[in-house]
Amino acid sequence: MEISHTILSIILILIAAKVFGELAERINQPPVLGELIAGVILGSSLLGWIKEDDVLITLAEVGAILLLFEVGLESDLEEFLRVGWSAFLVAVIGVAGPFAVGYFASIMLGLSTYVAIYIGATLTATSVGITARTLTDLGRLQTPEAKIILGAAVIDDVLGLIILAIVAGLVVTGTLSTLMVVKVTGLAIVFLVGAIVLGVPVAPHLLKIAQRMRTRGILTISAFVFCLFLAFTAESLQLAGIVGAFAAGLVLARTEELAHIQERIKPLADIFIPVFFVMLGVKVRLQDINPFNPENSQIVMLAILLIVIAASMKLFAGLGVVRSSASRLIVGIGMIPRGEVGLIFAKMGIDRGVLNSGEYAAIVAVVVATTFMTPFLLKLAFQRITKKLQKTSSHSPDATNA
Amino acid sequence: MEISHTILSIILILIAAKVFGELAERINQPPVLGELIAGVILGSSLLGWIKEDDVLITLAEVGAILLLFEVGLESDLEEFLRVGWSAFLVAVIGVAGPFAVGYFASIMLGLSTYVAIYIGATLTATSVGITARTLTDLGRLQTPEAKIILGAAVIDDVLGLIILAIVAGLVVTGTLSTLMVVKVTGLAIVFLVGAIVLGVPVAPHLLKIAQRMRTRGILTISAFVFCLFLAFTAESLQLAGIVGAFAAGLVLARTEELAHIQERIKPLADIFIPVFFVMLGVKVRLQDINPFNPENSQIVMLAILLIVIAASMKLFAGLGVVRSSASRLIVGIGMIPRGEVGLIFAKMGIDRGVLNSGEYAAIVAVVVATTFMTPFLLKLAFQRITKKLQKTSSHSPDATNA
Repeated sequence: MEISHTILSIILILIAAKVFGELAERINQPPVLGELIAGVILGSSLLGWIKEDDVLITLAEVGAILLLFEVGLESDLEEFLRVGWSAFLVAVIGVAGPFAVGYFASIMLGLSTYVAIYIGATLTATSVGITARTLTDLGRLQTPEAKIILGAAVIDDVLGLIILAIVAGLVVTGTLSTLMVVKVTGLAIVFLVGAIVLGVPVAPHLLKIAQRMRTRGILTISAFVFCLFLAFTAESLQLAGIVGAFAAGLVLARTEELAHIQERIKPLADIFIPVFFVMLGVKVRLQDINPFNPENSQIVMLAILLIVIAASMKLFAGLGVVRSSASRLIVGIGMIPRGEVGLIFAKMGIDRGVLNSGEYAAIVAVVVATTFMTPFLLKLAFQRITKKLQKTSSHSPDATNA
Repeated sequence: MEISHTILSIILILIAAKVFGELAERINQPPVLGELIAGVILGSSLLGWIKEDDVLITLAEVGAILLLFEVGLESDLEEFLRVGWSAFLVAVIGVAGPFAVGYFASIMLGLSTYVAIYIGATLTATSVGITARTLTDLGRLQTPEAKIILGAAVIDDVLGLIILAIVAGLVVTGTLSTLMVVKVTGLAIVFLVGAIVLGVPVAPHLLKIAQRMRTRGILTISAFVFCLFLAFTAESLQLAGIVGAFAAGLVLARTEELAHIQERIKPLADIFIPVFFVMLGVKVRLQDINPFNPENSQIVMLAILLIVIAASMKLFAGLGVVRSSASRLIVGIGMIPRGEVGLIFAKMGIDRGVLNSGEYAAIVAVVVATTFMTPFLLKLAFQRITKKLQKTSSHSPDATNA
């Protein structure tokens, strides 16, 4: 009976994702927004039909992994290196800014140093999932803005997780251990560089061995297992699994089998990715951030302040774009969404007794608000730029004629 | 941490499935045999690396569903109706025979009436999964034998589940309720006929509506959800989910989109189906049926007796083939494997206190032995027939010349 219950949940999630995704599309919004709303409606806040369980959490995780794997497959490593400086600066500003401002704002609101450090840390890591999906939905994944955003998001995930490891250590021991900082930082760099430097020459040979096998589905399984393996390795090194999946995509993007791999992975991604976004929506508890409930007034204040900081400091990070024609506004907007990593920080905070349930709800509100505003703002910003370009190009013929 | 543990399990299962499947293929055995062995090796009997949990059980269940869905997609409803009488007779003989002989053998061994009825019931239902997969591996899915076996397996699943519902009621109430027998039988027939009679005209319209949607992956999701929905409906009616999945395949096989659906479902099947077979292997506890352990002597006796009954009575059911050129031997062999349904019966028996752990282990041994012998025997039988045909055809030119 339990299995048939889970199967019913999967049916509901997929139907709701497609219906609301389609509605979003029809009112010219990215489908991902519809999927998030589908999750909020199915979740405990409204209908309560879908509850988080091990199976759905795992399917959602595989969805996030496949999302970043597909993004990696569509990415060109050389282009990333070309925007490397911009991505690096955007990431560093986008981590340092929210952390510092979030920390001082919390201190000013009278929160303790530990709570303030924790809140600052939760504001650092961009959730590249929402942005990557929106860019795909808008057909803008090949723009320089997209390259910088994705590169910066990977770097700031790594920076964010280094901060998390440091903050977690600080709360436990009361001191900052230099050894730990060096260890976590070193691991992250070794993993990413290692995965690419080793993976690029080795992957084609592995694929060739696999293709000599005669059983069915070998290319699908090889690509899927390679992606899961790097995701698992990244998690084992205390990095986020999606960082590993992205690296796996980057590596396989350089093989001759790329087109076949994309074709086989697509149906898997079609099924798993909507589960990820619907489950992000399911996590939302609207009642914790209901502004009409007077009990929530302080939490709502903190939440609004943190949302403003979270959005404005990532917009500010857009200034890190250098030596590129990319729009700083679009890069800044693309860095706004917080997601899984922010929620993981918040959950650790409440589990360790550093954050109370109000502070936790405020951080959840930041994740929700930044997640919901990004697709909308990105779409607007791209439209503005397109109009500007059209104006310029409609003027230029005159200029040529003159 | 728990998610990354599950991901590691999935990686291990898929790699082991492919490596052992490939080894089986290289020694001219069906890959599914390798996948079962991979499961036994990874399971508690030997390495103990893979343990059953909610996530793996669900993935395996989806694998079984996709397996029967693919089999349904490759099936032609008209051809099934053409072999209808044979399938029906094979199913009825194949249910009545093992039930009656299993019951009397248990009584003769001194077991109680209830236990004997329960053991008889567990021997009835063929697990079409193993046979369908072996037929696919051998490239024999389009033979008349395959049509009869698959048709009979669907009918005997339904008969088996009717018996289960009746036996379960008998154990609880101590009486046979005619009302219950009528109800369960009626539901099963209404479901199968209803799914096909309603599904065949309705499915093309549903697909057309879906295809007017603009979001990605709509055909994949529509087909997958349709299949899960019929599987869930079948389970809700106390039938096996795989019966519903098979009906879904039969229905979609008659749509214009068949080729596209098969193409999109294949990568999903490539990932999920090996999980199902590896997990069947993981369930096996070799120590319970170790014949060298004197403590097991009675269980081993019971197990051997039941294995002989289970295999011989299904071979006997091959005599049900009428008005067809199909080989009765092959049809009989194809009906031998017991699987999920037998294990579900056994698990219910031990949960309700009707079976003790020894009797349970004996039934598990029947499932294991019949599962392992079928691919091997089927391959041999097909080879024998091919040789006979070659001999006949190499003789016939002489006959013509004479």
